[in-house]
Amino acid sequence: MIFFGGDWNPEQWPSKVWHEDVALMREAHVNLVTVGVFSWSRLQPAPDRFDFGWLDEALDLLRDNDIGACLATPTASPPPWFTDGLPVTADGVRLTYGSRDTYCVNAPAYLAASSHIASALAERYSHHPALRMWHVHNEYGTTCYCDHCAAAFRLWLFRAYGDPDALNAAWSTDFWSQRYASFDEVRPPRTTQYLNNPAHLLDYRRFVSDAMLDHYVRQRDIVRPSGKPVTTNFALGGWVPVDHARWSREVDVVAVDDYPASVAGHLDDRAFVADLARGWAASAGGSSVSGSAGASSVSGWAGGSSESRSTGGSTVSGWHCGSGVSRSTGGSSVSGWDGGPSEAGSTDGRPWLVMEHAPGAVVEQGVVRALAEGEALAAAQTYTDRGATGVMYFQWRASRGGAEQWHPAIVPHEGPDTPVFREIAAVGAALAGCTPPTERADRALLYDEQTMWAWQSPHLPTRQIDYEATCRRWHRALGPPVDVIPIGAPLDTYRVVAAPLLHLVSSATHRALRSYVKASGTLILTFGCGLTDEHCRVTPGAFDDLLGIRAIRHLPGEGHLWLDDLEPAGAEVVLRAFGDRPVVTEHRYGLGLARFLATDLEDLTPWLQPSCSAPAESH
Amino acid sequence: MIFFGGDWNPEQWPSKVWHEDVALMREAHVNLVTVGVFSWSRLQPAPDRFDFGWLDEALDLLRDNDIGACLATPTASPPPWFTDGLPVTADGVRLTYGSRDTYCVNAPAYLAASSHIASALAERYSHHPALRMWHVHNEYGTTCYCDHCAAAFRLWLFRAYGDPDALNAAWSTDFWSQRYASFDEVRPPRTTQYLNNPAHLLDYRRFVSDAMLDHYVRQRDIVRPSGKPVTTNFALGGWVPVDHARWSREVDVVAVDDYPASVAGHLDDRAFVADLARGWAASAGGSSVSGSAGASSVSGWAGGSSESRSTGGSTVSGWHCGSGVSRSTGGSSVSGWDGGPSEAGSTDGRPWLVMEHAPGAVVEQGVVRALAEGEALAAAQTYTDRGATGVMYFQWRASRGGAEQWHPAIVPHEGPDTPVFREIAAVGAALAGCTPPTERADRALLYDEQTMWAWQSPHLPTRQIDYEATCRRWHRALGPPVDVIPIGAPLDTYRVVAAPLLHLVSSATHRALRSYVKASGTLILTFGCGLTDEHCRVTPGAFDDLLGIRAIRHLPGEGHLWLDDLEPAGAEVVLRAFGDRPVVTEHRYGLGLARFLATDLEDLTPWLQPSCSAPAESH
Amino acid sequence: MIFFGGDWNPEQWPSKVWHEDVALMREAHVNLVTVGVFSWSRLQPAPDRFDFGWLDEALDLLRDNDIGACLATPTASPPPWFTDGLPVTADGVRLTYGSRDTYCVNAPAYLAASSHIASALAERYSHHPALRMWHVHNEYGTTCYCDHCAAAFRLWLFRAYGDPDALNAAWSTDFWSQRYASFDEVRPPRTTQYLNNPAHLLDYRRFVSDAMLDHYVRQRDIVRPSGKPVTTNFALGGWVPVDHARWSREVDVVAVDDYPASVAGHLDDRAFVADLARGWAASAGGSSVSGSAGASSVSGWAGGSSESRSTGGSTVSGWHCGSGVSRSTGGSSVSGWDGGPSEAGSTDGRPWLVMEHAPGAVVEQGVVRALAEGEALAAAQTYTDRGATGVMYFQWRASRGGAEQWHPAIVPHEGPDTPVFREIAAVGAALAGCTPPTERADRALLYDEQTMWAWQSPHLPTRQIDYEATCRRWHRALGPPVDVIPIGAPLDTYRVVAAPLLHLVSSATHRALRSYVKASGTLILTFGCGLTDEHCRVTPGAFDDLLGIRAIRHLPGEGHLWLDDLEPAGAEVVLRAFGDRPVVTEHRYGLGLARFLATDLEDLTPWLQPSCSAPAESH
Repeated sequence: MIFFGGDWNPEQWPSKVWHEDVALMREAHVNLVTVGVFSWSRLQPAPDRFDFGWLDEALDLLRDNDIGACLATPTASPPPWFTDGLPVTADGVRLTYGSRDTYCVNAPAYLAASSHIASALAERYSHHPALRMWHVHNEYGTTCYCDHCAAAFRLWLFRAYGDPDALNAAWSTDFWSQRYASFDEVRPPRTTQYLNNPAHLLDYRRFVSDAMLDHYVRQRDIVRPSGKPVTTNFALGGWVPVDHARWSREVDVVAVDDYPASVAGHLDDRAFVADLARGWAASAGGSSVSGSAGASSVSGWAGGSSESRSTGGSTVSGWHCGSGVSRSTGGSSVSGWDGGPSEAGSTDGRPWLVMEHAPGAVVEQGVVRALAEGEALAAAQTYTDRGATGVMYFQWRASRGGAEQWHPAIVPHEGPDTPVFREIAAVGAALAGCTPPTERADRALLYDEQTMWAWQSPHLPTRQIDYEATCRRWHRALGPPVDVIPIGAPLDTYRVVAAPLLHLVSSATHRALRSYVKASGTLILTFGCGLTDEHCRVTPGAFDDLLGIRAIRHLPGEGHLWLDDLEPAGAEVVLRAFGDRPVVTEHRYGLGLARFLATDLEDLTPWLQPSCSAPAESH
Repeated sequence: MIFFGGDWNPEQWPSKVWHEDVALMREAHVNLVTVGVFSWSRLQPAPDRFDFGWLDEALDLLRDNDIGACLATPTASPPPWFTDGLPVTADGVRLTYGSRDTYCVNAPAYLAASSHIASALAERYSHHPALRMWHVHNEYGTTCYCDHCAAAFRLWLFRAYGDPDALNAAWSTDFWSQRYASFDEVRPPRTTQYLNNPAHLLDYRRFVSDAMLDHYVRQRDIVRPSGKPVTTNFALGGWVPVDHARWSREVDVVAVDDYPASVAGHLDDRAFVADLARGWAASAGGSSVSGSAGASSVSGWAGGSSESRSTGGSTVSGWHCGSGVSRSTGGSSVSGWDGGPSEAGSTDGRPWLVMEHAPGAVVEQGVVRALAEGEALAAAQTYTDRGATGVMYFQWRASRGGAEQWHPAIVPHEGPDTPVFREIAAVGAALAGCTPPTERADRALLYDEQTMWAWQSPHLPTRQIDYEATCRRWHRALGPPVDVIPIGAPLDTYRVVAAPLLHLVSSATHRALRSYVKASGTLILTFGCGLTDEHCRVTPGAFDDLLGIRAIRHLPGEGHLWLDDLEPAGAEVVLRAFGDRPVVTEHRYGLGLARFLATDLEDLTPWLQPSCSAPAESH
Repeated sequence: MIFFGGDWNPEQWPSKVWHEDVALMREAHVNLVTVGVFSWSRLQPAPDRFDFGWLDEALDLLRDNDIGACLATPTASPPPWFTDGLPVTADGVRLTYGSRDTYCVNAPAYLAASSHIASALAERYSHHPALRMWHVHNEYGTTCYCDHCAAAFRLWLFRAYGDPDALNAAWSTDFWSQRYASFDEVRPPRTTQYLNNPAHLLDYRRFVSDAMLDHYVRQRDIVRPSGKPVTTNFALGGWVPVDHARWSREVDVVAVDDYPASVAGHLDDRAFVADLARGWAASAGGSSVSGSAGASSVSGWAGGSSESRSTGGSTVSGWHCGSGVSRSTGGSSVSGWDGGPSEAGSTDGRPWLVMEHAPGAVVEQGVVRALAEGEALAAAQTYTDRGATGVMYFQWRASRGGAEQWHPAIVPHEGPDTPVFREIAAVGAALAGCTPPTERADRALLYDEQTMWAWQSPHLPTRQIDYEATCRRWHRALGPPVDVIPIGAPLDTYRVVAAPLLHLVSSATHRALRSYVKASGTLILTFGCGLTDEHCRVTPGAFDDLLGIRAIRHLPGEGHLWLDDLEPAGAEVVLRAFGDRPVVTEHRYGLGLARFLATDLEDLTPWLQPSCSAPAESH
């Protein structure tokens, strides 16, 4: 069984509409609805007063109709009475409420208020028969620069680096006279006169990710005694300060929100997101992660030595306020999950699902564009073909007012007698008999959100590199089937691993990649790979030994986007261009092959094959 | 007689230049000059000191030369000593003086200071023989988000909605957890994390309009005992938070500033502005407004039920600080007006005039472009052909310094022996013998500034709609002669009424439009019409009965800009396109016809005719 | 001997790298390195503690290898412990440290801290044998709007204008009600509602230039007793609030940083910068400036009458805190200079050099683009051909981390066995035997940074004018050889002087230009020349007598960018276009010729000749 449904916000409607809603849900084969995401001001109209009556009624109605509830904690949208923990921009502007996401996860008042409402919900609904899953918060993503954040950032840095000299070394503070005598001197990277220190920016984004993860874990540990699986929905996009690979280890099911940005190729985008989520889920599983030195190579950024942290695998030691016991409850062993859909569709690790996507539409450059008939089903199948255990939409019924009144919905403003509702209902029918796939990919694309962040820095030698778009393009060229995997995922089951533009490379990752090739893997690297270590410190020629070349000079702006000037040093030059320069090289390394693309080739296909017959011949 | 002249700022020049000025004015047939718009710091050099000597002298000089004075209160440009009521941006930045328009109409200190200078002027000059008109303030338009505004906004909301539940319903606050327990919780729509609530934004703009109107009325009531007509000059443009249709009921003459933005088609633009101002003036007249249920359909936004407010017709009850008596002095009955130019040129309501336009130039994308010879006269005639009772320029003599030193002027830097001065003088001569028009239009374009504001919201399904440009295009296709009329204006004298893109439609407007068609009118609506009620709440199919269709889905981004998917339900499909979809329909309704354009057609002409011969045949 | 080298930042590297560095420096013929620019936090790790050990060692190493040190004061990059004098934006945002340039030169705490570190350096290193030059601060350019600046600005205005009426007249404050009753009312031009007063903006930029110059002079006077030449490196660009022509009189050697913005034509750009720096240096020399009425025509902006200030020639009287004695030590008479490279390559005034440019690369629209082989030498020769006494790069060795880790360097990340190092070493070898040029130009281009600032104002009749790009284009058309000279430079040695777009023209400059033509010079002016006086006050027809025309109207947006409508009044029309309008005129004036280009001609060449044979014939 596949979870099928969407966000249901009954508080926006009179209860007579609720009855129409559940009847239509049954018609559309809906078996799970997310409830309460934006309900804080209705559940707790004032700091000292709760109103659960309407939610009792709504959940009972679901129970009576055999529809499960994915119950949200509403903490992403604090109500107007909450004014003590509003976020502050890099410019120092304290934001106002009146939208959503106006919170600072480091503000004590916000932490207290969000634990308060989560506890109240857990107490009241943990044993409600409609409850199938907990949905903590919504699309974590608010970056704040307030003084609470400054204090928390200093503590995070202290735990990561131990003493200021280690921080100074990691951040290269001797440039531009930024050497810190004490952690107390460090501030968030607020607006300044010229470029910020790139390592400072990167660590702040990691800190924000960890601080929000801590907020998530607090709530998870509050609702977990219910025995139901707990998750939060991941927002994707370059602006999101969340390292989802790391977070995947703390959720019982990886849940992604998928909002593609163009009609053309939107199925390709959905395939990418599906493979990405599956990869996070797989690598977050107990067996596939534990003990793998590579698994924490990036997650270990913030702490002490990467070796010592490879056993922790999550965040800065001591950072989380939850007890170690509760946090160790990883994997897919949560009992509640057994009551959910079959895990057969998932890969070895944890299950994953699509928590939100838009029914029958794509928002492209600010325009809500309808998809052609049949595309909604094609999208759903794209997900389930890749192992999704749930296909959910935002939202069930279009809101009459508010900022997202024009957001696509399963029941549009014009009601259920419309093409959109009919099409989504047909998707529900089709998924009801869906069989999970079993095919496994033998090619993988390494995708690293921290590298995406690094490519966003304004200080780079070119701003023309779009890491995510490049990875989407490689993904299309590599598959299907193809896995999209995070740093630290096991590589040994793949014949080909491609890691385009892998900017940030820690020593653990360097080791993992070499091990993979030595053991007969084919690894494809490109210009831009290994430019720096995990602290944005340049590591010239870091892959030279593996690639059998000598990198002489990066030439951004040449070739199409970038060209590396190199000399072969053991590698074979298999393609030359731009005036007979080497642009593709191949190097035997152990039992495997390391291929290098020194520029941005238009046609990737010829270079994505595993080690060709030639080596077999020469062996 | 037509008023002819412009802004004269004698304080910028030594008095010997004044004598040259008045001689040139006489040569150019100038009969009215606006004085004192930017004179506050000269009239009141310090909070406790006035200096009227220079203005006495200037007004006496005008009197001696039979030139009338349109005397301004200078409150749009507070002097440097005024530091207590500076405006604050949505980001919380308190603006500095040193430009113009640095005021907050809700700041007590500003209200006191502006009443102070207005009273001093009224006391000194109410009986000066040169005085012909009062010009309160200048181009109202500064939006402020300070705490004074927050307090006033809460009061405005209280008066409009009475209790928080009504506010919550109007603003759909159950979306995104924005439910207010009390008016005290509401803030101005300051910078926030994501999209603001669109109804919140719209009400804030209405509030700002009303707050500024209150400021205007305070001053109007101070100067009105002089018996001379009182007005303020309307700035036009998408950024202006002023509902000019409503304001028109509070001025004795509708005065607009007309700054077109392109050389090509600038006469079309000027015709649009002239027809727009005439429409505001006409619908603001006593007889044409009172008792019309439609007349207050939009003006009643802010108050209680639309029925009860239709008798008030202006702003939130009790909002204005002036007495009801003074405010009831509407219409064109002000005695002082009789001393002004003939009203023959005006339509049934109040007179209107152009208070400012640029002599012989247009500012196009930041470039001051000269118009060809003869175009200044053509522009003036475009105004007077549409009933303007005045054609005024900004400004008389080009300023030697300051931020508008390069603004076009009647007497340019190079002096009067120049083409510009000669051309404007010729305009004066031509207008001196001008006969007002008598032709009446039988087609009308409904134009609603609140709908323009609604189309500016970032939350819409497309941002490609330019309401104002679309209305200008329809205006060209419909006329001349064509009336541009506000919501609530009487429709019964028109054979055709077009209301393209009329986004916000209250129930009163719904009734008025149906009444018009029933009584034999031809009404033309388009995609985008009736999307929401007056609180931005979606009203699906709101026009279906009138149009004889069933609207199924909006498809922004299809067709050219937008395409509505519909099924005929009584209407005849008279044009199909985009794969045989219905794009123009016609529906008999009562004695009239309702035509619908489901997409953005390039050629509007075929669809602007009144009900064709067919119905006559079929009757 | 030419100075050759670059910025060496040993504090970023372990000392074993230093030894490799100096060996490579010798290989590359490096004879001077800039040390300490970004070292404040290493030299003074806490307010009460200095650490000079590493710098002692580095300077000793240079001494031992016969490499000179250009020792910087590190005040452009305050360390994290410095939090009391951070700059504030026009919006009121107090910037944070964590980048560079986070200082306010008017903050007492910053003035004290920067004098403290400068004094400590002077005390310790004034007699170090490696010391060849002092490099005060780095690329002055931070504009601040804080209350310290407000107070200092008021004092500056008081000294410049004496009483508020003079300020009001200069700033034309009667427009928009900006009349100041007292200097205390004036604020920096912070964010306001609409356009700022252009004269206010311009004076603020002059004030910032003077305030930063005062900061420079304080430090110069602290280090000067060492007897070594003192300079600071000029950042060029439209955003820089520094009047380099004025500053050139306070440095012992004019030092420019040259970062061209495009690969195509980059040698042209470098030639322009070289000629510009030479012009500043030449006109800053004692003999070439003193006594010239024109020399201070612009520099005298800020003080009393231009006549009285023409003897001072620098800044507002009394503004500098240094003693008059130390400030009078202008010219090239500093004894320390004799120990430097030969001055033979310089022109009559002071020496000049390139303190920074990028080795072998150009940053074009955010992309670091490599130059072709040979271009680094060509660039260096472009400098030395124009008299440069030094060719220096930023930086010696690429930084491993920090915001400029991707900035080009002599020793790139890939080490010295790379094309870049080899090429720069070859430049060093070539320059070692370089002979300074002796050719003198007989054509000059007047280039005025204050005019550049004036053209940046948003209030102009067009924003399409790019003053600097236009001057670069004229520079290419005029030369080589051509001098680029500031306002006030002597003109009598030139056969042709061109002054395109010279917006701001003081009465002293008006006199100087007429004197030049009378005495047989050929002067070329264009549209846009003489639009205003030095306070942005329009001066219509200011050049009419000289040009023998009557200017009737400016037509921005006509012709290509702009066209002046004019009538000949003594001048000969030598080219007509755009419907037979006069576009080039020539006027005999005294013994010379004044040519006028009324529009933006594509081909300038025909109009750059000195007075042609015709006058000779007619004599």
